[in-house]
Amino acid sequence: MQLGMVGLGRMGGNILRRVMQAGHEGVAFDRDDAAVATLVAEGAAGATSLKELVGLLRAPRTVWVMLPAGEITEAALTELHGLLSPGDTIIEGGNSFWKDSARRGAEAEARGLHYLDIGTSGGVWGLKRGYCLMIGGPAEVVQRLDPILAALVPGAGTALPTEGREARDPRPAQGYVHCGPNGAGHYAKMVHNGIEYGMMQAMAEGLDLMRAAPFDLDLPDITEAWRRGSVVSSWLLDLTAQALAYDPDLAEYSGHVSDSGEGRWTVDTAVEQAVPVPVLAAALFARFRSRQEASFADKALSAMRKGFGGHLEPKKG
Amino acid sequence: MQLGMVGLGRMGGNILRRVMQAGHEGVAFDRDDAAVATLVAEGAAGATSLKELVGLLRAPRTVWVMLPAGEITEAALTELHGLLSPGDTIIEGGNSFWKDSARRGAEAEARGLHYLDIGTSGGVWGLKRGYCLMIGGPAEVVQRLDPILAALVPGAGTALPTEGREARDPRPAQGYVHCGPNGAGHYAKMVHNGIEYGMMQAMAEGLDLMRAAPFDLDLPDITEAWRRGSVVSSWLLDLTAQALAYDPDLAEYSGHVSDSGEGRWTVDTAVEQAVPVPVLAAALFARFRSRQEASFADKALSAMRKGFGGHLEPKKG
Amino acid sequence: MQLGMVGLGRMGGNILRRVMQAGHEGVAFDRDDAAVATLVAEGAAGATSLKELVGLLRAPRTVWVMLPAGEITEAALTELHGLLSPGDTIIEGGNSFWKDSARRGAEAEARGLHYLDIGTSGGVWGLKRGYCLMIGGPAEVVQRLDPILAALVPGAGTALPTEGREARDPRPAQGYVHCGPNGAGHYAKMVHNGIEYGMMQAMAEGLDLMRAAPFDLDLPDITEAWRRGSVVSSWLLDLTAQALAYDPDLAEYSGHVSDSGEGRWTVDTAVEQAVPVPVLAAALFARFRSRQEASFADKALSAMRKGFGGHLEPKKG
Amino acid sequence: MQLGMVGLGRMGGNILRRVMQAGHEGVAFDRDDAAVATLVAEGAAGATSLKELVGLLRAPRTVWVMLPAGEITEAALTELHGLLSPGDTIIEGGNSFWKDSARRGAEAEARGLHYLDIGTSGGVWGLKRGYCLMIGGPAEVVQRLDPILAALVPGAGTALPTEGREARDPRPAQGYVHCGPNGAGHYAKMVHNGIEYGMMQAMAEGLDLMRAAPFDLDLPDITEAWRRGSVVSSWLLDLTAQALAYDPDLAEYSGHVSDSGEGRWTVDTAVEQAVPVPVLAAALFARFRSRQEASFADKALSAMRKGFGGHLEPKKG
Repeated sequence: MQLGMVGLGRMGGNILRRVMQAGHEGVAFDRDDAAVATLVAEGAAGATSLKELVGLLRAPRTVWVMLPAGEITEAALTELHGLLSPGDTIIEGGNSFWKDSARRGAEAEARGLHYLDIGTSGGVWGLKRGYCLMIGGPAEVVQRLDPILAALVPGAGTALPTEGREARDPRPAQGYVHCGPNGAGHYAKMVHNGIEYGMMQAMAEGLDLMRAAPFDLDLPDITEAWRRGSVVSSWLLDLTAQALAYDPDLAEYSGHVSDSGEGRWTVDTAVEQAVPVPVLAAALFARFRSRQEASFADKALSAMRKGFGGHLEPKKG
Repeated sequence: MQLGMVGLGRMGGNILRRVMQAGHEGVAFDRDDAAVATLVAEGAAGATSLKELVGLLRAPRTVWVMLPAGEITEAALTELHGLLSPGDTIIEGGNSFWKDSARRGAEAEARGLHYLDIGTSGGVWGLKRGYCLMIGGPAEVVQRLDPILAALVPGAGTALPTEGREARDPRPAQGYVHCGPNGAGHYAKMVHNGIEYGMMQAMAEGLDLMRAAPFDLDLPDITEAWRRGSVVSSWLLDLTAQALAYDPDLAEYSGHVSDSGEGRWTVDTAVEQAVPVPVLAAALFARFRSRQEASFADKALSAMRKGFGGHLEPKKG
Repeated sequence: MQLGMVGLGRMGGNILRRVMQAGHEGVAFDRDDAAVATLVAEGAAGATSLKELVGLLRAPRTVWVMLPAGEITEAALTELHGLLSPGDTIIEGGNSFWKDSARRGAEAEARGLHYLDIGTSGGVWGLKRGYCLMIGGPAEVVQRLDPILAALVPGAGTALPTEGREARDPRPAQGYVHCGPNGAGHYAKMVHNGIEYGMMQAMAEGLDLMRAAPFDLDLPDITEAWRRGSVVSSWLLDLTAQALAYDPDLAEYSGHVSDSGEGRWTVDTAVEQAVPVPVLAAALFARFRSRQEASFADKALSAMRKGFGGHLEPKKG
Repeated sequence: MQLGMVGLGRMGGNILRRVMQAGHEGVAFDRDDAAVATLVAEGAAGATSLKELVGLLRAPRTVWVMLPAGEITEAALTELHGLLSPGDTIIEGGNSFWKDSARRGAEAEARGLHYLDIGTSGGVWGLKRGYCLMIGGPAEVVQRLDPILAALVPGAGTALPTEGREARDPRPAQGYVHCGPNGAGHYAKMVHNGIEYGMMQAMAEGLDLMRAAPFDLDLPDITEAWRRGSVVSSWLLDLTAQALAYDPDLAEYSGHVSDSGEGRWTVDTAVEQAVPVPVLAAALFARFRSRQEASFADKALSAMRKGFGGHLEPKKG
């Protein structure tokens, strides 16, 4: 099959590579000519505009949009609406809010286009390990594009089989899942990332508590041991053990932790649906707090303490 | 009546003053001679040792111990055990863990002494406004010492009456309450302070959110308005509005917020009793966090993010 | 002055009464004729439609909209846009999302109308105690309508003065505050209610912890004592002590706690502004959780425990 | 080598089995004769008392105590103190509080005995997969008993190697780690379980949020897909996907989630060390809450709401 890729950053470039490695044809476009040139050198056809990209694809076309931010994605989708023909398919694989994906799917369908929203997990490791795909959109389109999707996922051998799935859809055991109509793919990805935030914060708090122990605990060794046989064994633990093996003090990190949209959308959606998510919210707030110096909230606490008790908090040394 | 006070700090000195202002006799002891001299100048008898303090009191004696830290309190209680006679009473009014107070009560009783644990709220304002007292110990001792206790509390007029209390103990409507046996007074005080932490943090987060508003909100004015007719009107709000009136930016505060034992004991006790206290714990953790620079937990989050996504968090400017 | 009131429920009816008690003219409209009749019997002019209400008011008119839900409010505002004349003022005093209020203000202004968004706190006690008002909108309109606003607030005597406010706006010390342009009033009210949620949850957790004490603590007496001289004295404590005096076991309450928009908007806005609000969010989630029977999250925990440990959780008795 | 096992429950029996499968001699004791008989049938020597167990072991003896509760463990250790000889070793592998382990180590050492506290993770799967061991105690004892310890762990092949560990202790890459002196093993295990609670709660909240989605999400399929290539892939996810494959509704679970000591000790220790652990605490509180019907805290919230707003919460249907 043929796949056009719009956006050749860390994610888009590698997704196209993995598809091409499976024998498919790639057509590459990015505003950055050098990024296009790199993919062309690896066998892709290169385009210098969306229009050229569309021209290089045979109908029914498949264009995967993999751009970093919401406005850029929105603009690319709008431009593609004018270039594509009925029966063509747009895949949007970025970190989009699921309500946007539901809307965009309806907008595409109104023009006779197909639309898939695909939540993509795997990060910089995906080229080698494969990507986990959470897909929203029409079942028949998902089915038709299966050769491309199947090329991207890790495959069955990468985890032990789960009992009782014999009569079920075989795709999840390969690493991809059709979640439902447009929006459902990014909903599942949003929840995935919410869980990721919570698991990361749980791990981080535990490490903090080990640093505070009355014993001189060797964090690289303990996390390494946990990777085998323990209940907390996980890919995040693998990465943690690796980072600690490089530097037990993690001295290169500032401690200012960014957050992306999904963690926020998770809390927003939970609030909307009245689902209590104390851990997912606490994990998000910990990131917010990590980026503040002395917060106004903390100053207000000190001011109240001084008010009733005459306590003046010590100035920072 | 006569009251001996051990510890003439901000709390002990003012408690003795308020008792003396009600016409009782005060006997004052502190390691700091100047503190004793100040109280002597205000009419108290002064002692230079615990032994002298006990000698200046007529049996049955009442000695109020009001010392800042656990070990000093423990030492003073032990010394008093050797000096007092059966029928004498020790009042311990500091911020003690309720299990310690239960134990200390039993130890005193084993020597024929009486023991009251009194949680005392009111801070630097207590001399003028009166103190709220939460009392643990034998009912008959609480009854016998009522003239001293009644002198300390704010009195009925300081809050509107509650309906349906006609047949109840009249003391709570004056500001003091006999909570139960030894330990119960400090248990109630612990919970009081736990609630205080939660209320303060709620207020602080709200102020932070107003500072982050897309409007230029005048915090001194808004908090002042809330003091009248709103659901959040409270003494903590009064103090907040006052602090903001002095300085809307609270620039004098470092944002490093101390915590005392009660907030910690509240969470420990909740964990022991399997009572969920998400807000009280979150309030305590916010104080812990306020005293950390970039935490190791946050660095660990960054390390994981780099591990799976290649994100390197920006260094602090 | 003249005030038209749209919506004569618990809040709207009493607001109109309090304005009329201050000597102003009231015009009353509600879909429920009986509600109108009651106000007419108390001296208001009655209207059977928005059109009639507008007809009964002299220009420049002031219409206060006090309706329970968002859609009803939106419909009433749209209808009023067609009935009112340039220079007239709409006051919207319900629990509205601040972004809606900002938008509605712009829509009204586009038609030459004035618009005030007023967050109103005081509940069923407001008629007697007065209401705390947080106002968004043009300063000159707020100024012109001061006689009505001043009639609603509790007044200066209801709280002790704050030092250092001599050079400041005198209105906050009466219980009302002009927060900024449209939206700012409801923003402040949103934060107010967020704080309220947090303070309530802090109090509730503390009571729970007292119920779990190894002592038989008398909650009505302890909360009554706290009302005088303690750091947690507050209107919410007054109400708590009153409820416990009626029934120490609070047996009439189901424990299913509702939540209104403000608590949710508070968390949403905090997430949008990257402000950590662990306590305000925990308070909201506690309400969500109170309305669930065994949650799916809890079942999932049990399923994991069975998976790794063979633990089967006991079925509910 | 020879290993005596005290306590043949789910953990102790399988640990002895795995040691015997590696060619070591096992001596088995349990109060339950049938449990002893089962192990004897599998090749162990059986004892009907601690005394007999000790008699069957050659000096220097190694006795592993694996009992479910604190008091039973304490009693067994005391009895063993009277039976063992200097140079013998006690291993305590249960879920003990690290401060108890530190104390017990000192008590054993005072009698010339050696003591290891070993946190053991792996649950019912350990026999097959191996156990992750976190060990506290003297390095030379850990070294001498390495044949037994090495028999228990999963081994290097069960996870991909971590870069940069070439110069480090090779044991962690097999699944065991010497954490430090007595107490350090159980400290690391405590933190491990605290992290486990947080990760489980993160997963559980995410599942809850997927159940509340406006889409009909297939949880068994989505969790199965996440097992491959996603950031949340973990053993807990494997177990979750398995449980959902058996029953997507988890109908067999009551939703009452138990908690064991480690989760509580984690929070207590964090409070003692002033380490903020919002996620670990929230996870613990969610379990507490899962076991409550309508809580008193929730009733108190309703009572306050009625107090200020006249809202009466609906009774449970």
